[in-house]
Amino acid sequence: MSQQERIWIDPAEVERYILELARHGGDGTGVRRLVYSPEWVAAQEQVASWCREVGLEVHRDAVGNVWGRLAGTEGGPSIATGSHIDSQNPGGRYDGALGVIAGILALRALRERYGQPRRTIEVVSLCEEESSRFPAAAFWGSRAITGRATPADTEELRGYGGETMAEAMRAVGLDPARIPEARRSDIDTWIELHIEQGPILEQAGLPVAIVNGLPGIRHYVVRVEGRSDHAGAMPMDLRRDPMAGAAEMISGVIRTAQEMGRPAVTTVGRMLVEPNFPAIVPERVTFTIDVRHANPAQRDRLHAAHEALLRAVAERRGLGLHWEITTDLPPCPADPELVRLLEDVAREQGVPTLTMPSGAVHDTQRMAEIAKVAMIFVQSKDGRSHTPAEYTAPEHAAAGIQVLAAALHRLAY
Amino acid sequence: MSQQERIWIDPAEVERYILELARHGGDGTGVRRLVYSPEWVAAQEQVASWCREVGLEVHRDAVGNVWGRLAGTEGGPSIATGSHIDSQNPGGRYDGALGVIAGILALRALRERYGQPRRTIEVVSLCEEESSRFPAAAFWGSRAITGRATPADTEELRGYGGETMAEAMRAVGLDPARIPEARRSDIDTWIELHIEQGPILEQAGLPVAIVNGLPGIRHYVVRVEGRSDHAGAMPMDLRRDPMAGAAEMISGVIRTAQEMGRPAVTTVGRMLVEPNFPAIVPERVTFTIDVRHANPAQRDRLHAAHEALLRAVAERRGLGLHWEITTDLPPCPADPELVRLLEDVAREQGVPTLTMPSGAVHDTQRMAEIAKVAMIFVQSKDGRSHTPAEYTAPEHAAAGIQVLAAALHRLAY
Repeated sequence: MSQQERIWIDPAEVERYILELARHGGDGTGVRRLVYSPEWVAAQEQVASWCREVGLEVHRDAVGNVWGRLAGTEGGPSIATGSHIDSQNPGGRYDGALGVIAGILALRALRERYGQPRRTIEVVSLCEEESSRFPAAAFWGSRAITGRATPADTEELRGYGGETMAEAMRAVGLDPARIPEARRSDIDTWIELHIEQGPILEQAGLPVAIVNGLPGIRHYVVRVEGRSDHAGAMPMDLRRDPMAGAAEMISGVIRTAQEMGRPAVTTVGRMLVEPNFPAIVPERVTFTIDVRHANPAQRDRLHAAHEALLRAVAERRGLGLHWEITTDLPPCPADPELVRLLEDVAREQGVPTLTMPSGAVHDTQRMAEIAKVAMIFVQSKDGRSHTPAEYTAPEHAAAGIQVLAAALHRLAY
Repeated sequence: MSQQERIWIDPAEVERYILELARHGGDGTGVRRLVYSPEWVAAQEQVASWCREVGLEVHRDAVGNVWGRLAGTEGGPSIATGSHIDSQNPGGRYDGALGVIAGILALRALRERYGQPRRTIEVVSLCEEESSRFPAAAFWGSRAITGRATPADTEELRGYGGETMAEAMRAVGLDPARIPEARRSDIDTWIELHIEQGPILEQAGLPVAIVNGLPGIRHYVVRVEGRSDHAGAMPMDLRRDPMAGAAEMISGVIRTAQEMGRPAVTTVGRMLVEPNFPAIVPERVTFTIDVRHANPAQRDRLHAAHEALLRAVAERRGLGLHWEITTDLPPCPADPELVRLLEDVAREQGVPTLTMPSGAVHDTQRMAEIAKVAMIFVQSKDGRSHTPAEYTAPEHAAAGIQVLAAALHRLAY
C-alpha cells in the first residue's frame, strides 16, 4: 500500500465484538471472567470462532491460550499480537479483551484487502494475565509461551478458593504435563493493543498512545502477627495489635510513593484480618503491596524504603513480620525501532498520538523475553480500569486498531 | 450457716463440666458455638439436663434462654445468676460458659447442703451475648429479658450469612412473635461470674475479683468510599484511595486511646476491603471501631476525638465517609451494697480478691436495667480471651464459684 493509504476499522463493529464477548461472564457494565471458569471457556470458544470466520488456522495450546494464524508465503518467525480475555473479579469489558478483538479485526481488514501476507501473522488470546483466580499466577499464558511455567508449578499455585492450578486445568481438559509444548521460540515481534487504564490520553485529548516501556512491578504479601486479645479487657499498653501495625505500615508505604512522585506508585489493594471480629484484637493481618516504577535505580530505592519501614514498625510494636514476593518483574523498555515504526504508521494513518510509558504491567513484559515488543494504548474514560466502570469510546478503539493493522501491514506484507 | 462455714466446690468437677460443654462445637482448645446453631442447641440441652439433675425446674423462654429455678419458700422476686454459652467464632471454652456452669454448681452445692431456700434462686444460660452470628444483636438473650428485643427486630437483624434473626429462630422452633413473653420484671438481684479476659488478676497473683462497674461501649461501623483505579496506571496524586484513608484513620483512633491512657480502649478488629485485589486501588473499605471507657465524661471526649479524626481524614483526602453506631451502652456501676456483700463473703470464705472495674461488657450491663447487679471475675491465663488459647485454672474457677455460692446463700437463705 502507499504510505498514505488508510485502513478503515468500523467503530460500530468494534463495539459489537466488545458487547458480544462481554456476554460471557457479564456483570452489569463489567465482567467476571476468571481463567478456566465456564464463562472464560465460552469466551475463548467465541474468540476461536471469530478467528475461523476471518480465515485463520486456530489452535488451543497446552495452557489454553487460543492462537489464530495467518500463514505467510515466506514462512519464518511470526509477527504476533493479542492480549488476554480473563478479567478482574469484577473487571471491565475492555481490559485485555479489546487487544484480542483488535488483533482479529486487524487481521480481517488486512486479509480482506491485501490477501496472504509475506510473513506469518498470529493473534493470541492469553490466559490469567490478571491473577484474579490464582494470586501468584499473573501472566500465566505468556509465562507458558516464554517457558516460564512448568508442570510442577501447577501443583503449587492455588486459587483463592484453595484449588490447585492443576485441578483447574484438568477440569477444562488441559493436561499440566504438556505445558512445555506451549513454549514458542519462533515469534520475532510482539505488539499488544490495550486500554490505557489511566488518565493521560484523556487529559491530552488524544485517542491513541505508542508505549515505549513498561514499569518494574513487585508484589509483596505481608503478614503481620500480633496477639489476639479481648477488645475491652486488655489495656492498650499491653497489646501487640497487628491492625495498629498494619495501618501504620500501609499509611507509610503509600506516603513514601507519594513523596517520591510520578511515576512511583504503591498500592495496598487487598487485606485479610484474622479472626476479623469487632470485639477481638486481631491475631494476624495480611495485606499486599503493589509497587511500580519505570526507573531501575528509583525502583530499588522505593523497595528499600518500603522494607525498612515495615521492619521499623514491626520492631517498635513487637509484632511478627513476614513477607513473600509473589511477582517481581524489572522495568521493560519497548524496542526503539518498533516504537518508531508505530509512530510512523500512526502519522501516515492520520491518527494523533503521544508516546508514553505504561503505568500498568502487561503480558508484553513477558513476551519481551522472546521477541521485540511495543504496545498501543487507547484512551480510557476517566482513566478508570479494573472496575465495571471501565470504558473506551469505539472511535478511540478503532483508531488504535487502525494503527495496529498498519503496523502489521508494514511488517508482514 | 455461720460466717466462717466454707462451701466446697471441687475444681475437678468444674473442669469436667467445662470439657463436657466444650464438646458441643469444639474446635481444638476452643469452641465455635454460634447462637441457634446445632452445636448451640445441643449445648443448651446439656445445660437443661444438668439443671434437672440438680433438681431445678427448667424452662426455655421465647428467645431460647434456658432457665433453671430453685423456688424459695417465701416467693417474691428472684435472685438470679448465669451467663451465656454462645462463643466467638472461634472463641474459648470459658468465656460465658463458666458463668452458666458456676450457677449450676453453686445451686447444687447450696441445695445439697442447705435444702430449699427462703427466696427463689434462678440460673440462666443466655443467648447471643457475643454477636458472633448477628453482628448487631449483642446481648440478644438479656435484651429479651429486659424488654429490649421486639418481634420486629428479628426481621431487621441479619447474620453474617445474610439470614434474618427470625429465620434463625424459627429454624430451632422459636416463634419471634412470642419474644415479649421472655421479659422479666421479677428479678431483684443479678450476679454474673465470668473470666476476667484481661491480665490484672494474674499480675496481682489473685484468683478472684469483685467487679464494681462495667465500661461504656460503642461500636462504630465505618465505611470509607473512594474510587477504584488501576494500581499501575493511575498516578498517586490523582487517586482517591479509601485504603490510604482508612489506614490513617485506624492509626489515629488507636493512638488517641493510647494517649488518653487506661481504661480507654479502642480496637479495630474487623475490616472488609472491596474489591480486595492486589492490583486494584479499592473502591470501599469498611471497618469497625470498638470504643470503651468507664468514665462518662472521658468516654464522650474519646468519641468526639475519634469522630473528628475520621471527618478530618476523609475531608482532606476527598473520601466519602459514613458510619453507623451498632452498639451504644453507657458505663454501668455495680450496686455498691452487693459489691460489699461479695467482698464480705469472699473474705469469710478465705478467697483472696481485689475489687476492679470490668474492661469487657457483659449481659450484666443489660440486667442492670431491671435488677441490682455485680460480677465476680476469675483469673484468665495470660489475660487472653476471645481465642481458643483462653484458659482458667480449675482452682481459680472453683474459688470464684465458692464466692458466688456464698453470696447466693447470704441473699436467699
